[in-house]
Amino acid sequence: MMTEKIEGAAVTTRANVYFDGKCVSHTLQLADGTKKSVGVVLPATLTFNTGAAEVMECVAGSCEYKLAGSSEWKKSAAGEKFSIPANSSFEIKVTEAYHYICHFA
Amino acid sequence: MMTEKIEGAAVTTRANVYFDGKCVSHTLQLADGTKKSVGVVLPATLTFNTGAAEVMECVAGSCEYKLAGSSEWKKSAAGEKFSIPANSSFEIKVTEAYHYICHFA
Repeated sequence: MMTEKIEGAAVTTRANVYFDGKCVSHTLQLADGTKKSVGVVLPATLTFNTGAAEVMECVAGSCEYKLAGSSEWKKSAAGEKFSIPANSSFEIKVTEAYHYICHFA
Repeated sequence: MMTEKIEGAAVTTRANVYFDGKCVSHTLQLADGTKKSVGVVLPATLTFNTGAAEVMECVAGSCEYKLAGSSEWKKSAAGEKFSIPANSSFEIKVTEAYHYICHFA
């Protein structure tokens, strides 16, 4: 089931702006301490690095992504998720805005 | 006092993308039903229209703004607010990212 809303979040009002605004996100913290971010990637091809492991859940639009060490581009659309290991990276190719919620492991 | 965090919010995960991504925001709803949005305007000069009256509070960066019917550009920086009447508009000129929380009246 797609996460359309996150309830009971503490929202940091200052945005995270990456790649000259090609990616903009806001950081959320839930009551149990869990951190998440909600964001959008605009049309671009970008490389993101992970610290903690992440699960990227698409909530609107779509993207293609390629994990570090893989040569295969895969598609992720609304309601779909993909996982990135800790201390790794992935490339993302977006042609229509990719809206996501990022769950940290 | 500047609003660095909003607690207990229901966050709509899909972003609002305006002007090809020059403005990106996320919609929040508080427990009492109040709606707010947190967003960022990237370097650009844009015109926004209001439905409900709004208070724009800067949480990082700065902008210049000019309300409909005024010929005066005013500056708004972190911790400062300005109000826009309902069914009106304002121009905003941003040279460094303007991070805001929008309070609806």
